[in-house]
Amino acid sequence: MPSALILIANGTEEMEFTIVYDTLIRAGVKCTSAFIAPSDQSGNDQPQPATAQCSRGIRIVPDVLQTQLSETSVGEYDAIIVPGGAKGAETMSQSPLVQTLIKGFYEQGKYVGMICAGSLAAKTSQLPRQPLTSHPSVKKELDEGISAIIRVGAHCMTPDRLRLSRRSSGDLREANHKVLTVAHHFTDSVTVRSQTSFPSRGPGTAFPFAFALVEGLCGAQKRLEVVHPMVFPSGTPL
Amino acid sequence: MPSALILIANGTEEMEFTIVYDTLIRAGVKCTSAFIAPSDQSGNDQPQPATAQCSRGIRIVPDVLQTQLSETSVGEYDAIIVPGGAKGAETMSQSPLVQTLIKGFYEQGKYVGMICAGSLAAKTSQLPRQPLTSHPSVKKELDEGISAIIRVGAHCMTPDRLRLSRRSSGDLREANHKVLTVAHHFTDSVTVRSQTSFPSRGPGTAFPFAFALVEGLCGAQKRLEVVHPMVFPSGTPL
Repeated sequence: MPSALILIANGTEEMEFTIVYDTLIRAGVKCTSAFIAPSDQSGNDQPQPATAQCSRGIRIVPDVLQTQLSETSVGEYDAIIVPGGAKGAETMSQSPLVQTLIKGFYEQGKYVGMICAGSLAAKTSQLPRQPLTSHPSVKKELDEGISAIIRVGAHCMTPDRLRLSRRSSGDLREANHKVLTVAHHFTDSVTVRSQTSFPSRGPGTAFPFAFALVEGLCGAQKRLEVVHPMVFPSGTPL
Repeated sequence: MPSALILIANGTEEMEFTIVYDTLIRAGVKCTSAFIAPSDQSGNDQPQPATAQCSRGIRIVPDVLQTQLSETSVGEYDAIIVPGGAKGAETMSQSPLVQTLIKGFYEQGKYVGMICAGSLAAKTSQLPRQPLTSHPSVKKELDEGISAIIRVGAHCMTPDRLRLSRRSSGDLREANHKVLTVAHHFTDSVTVRSQTSFPSRGPGTAFPFAFALVEGLCGAQKRLEVVHPMVFPSGTPL
């Protein structure tokens, strides 16, 4: 059974968190939500509450606290997900532990899924330059606007994934056009051309973002099985 | 400031709950989530936990418990929302308090929003016959498949609402076609033809369901203001 570590913090966008978690569970992925606490000025973690107070006031109880994570957590999961929400994404992107985890998932060729403002973590984790998407509100900081599913390896961009991307061609063109701009904000590593980027810029693309993760972790057939009972209106770009 | 009472129970579909709550908050609607406990065989309410364990395992802390609700709560809110999730919808639809509340909101001409399996509550609350939508899984029980926003009065079906509905024409045709079938399961009251039904059959239509509520409570301009920063892919039927 594939597994995913889904981060949550005070200020996390609750739709983005919930849509990804719920959709992955539907696909049979074992999901673990982990609360990330803000670091204080001395770099120490602040006390952690029992619930995450999300961006629009919904309070969610995380599965585990930050103290239950470490560098070795990379070996326990197949993917790490960083949802948006300005305050939550700021906390995550500034967390040394999150930066270590993202770098670890990336270097082990596992999925790193970032949506909306969550893409800030790609910058603070110093991932190699590559296509990214983000919410427009953090476009300036990333000097580019668009979130990402990032995967090392040539086998990620499946024909079906390409078909999905073309449906959102407006966003995708923007992503492709701006990859070089984004690159300046990352390390000097060469762009890994075989990596894929699925445009997911905010809550409005949280479903296709989640489905792309399902496809990556469980295959195209599982993706179809998960989409069907959700009863999307015909014509929805997924 | 408009206000909405959003029900939650063990087994509630967390995406449907969260998308509606979050979207209404973005529109400036004061939202209150209320935990509904299952009734035991003697009709007494069972002890209530501090969190709702939703359908895919996400634990959400409700704003108020059922004990803080009563018949008079109808006067405090402009809308009541019943999300889906098979087990949660079953608990809500069988709750005498929920039935009283839904009937109260309906009779006072306020919004009653039901999505997915939540539409079962229209039947148990004995609302007058009218177009309804629901998740296909409860189609047999409602003898019709499709959820609803129900409103008494002639001013609900705005031109913009109609335009939205046409975008989901496949679902809408089904709703219109089956209204008479559905009617047999409700009371013998005449169908209120001026009421509107926005097709929302599952998580896949939770966004347009929420936007229709925003438009009803806050107007068409506010709806546009809320949709824009969510960054939906172009072509999404909303």
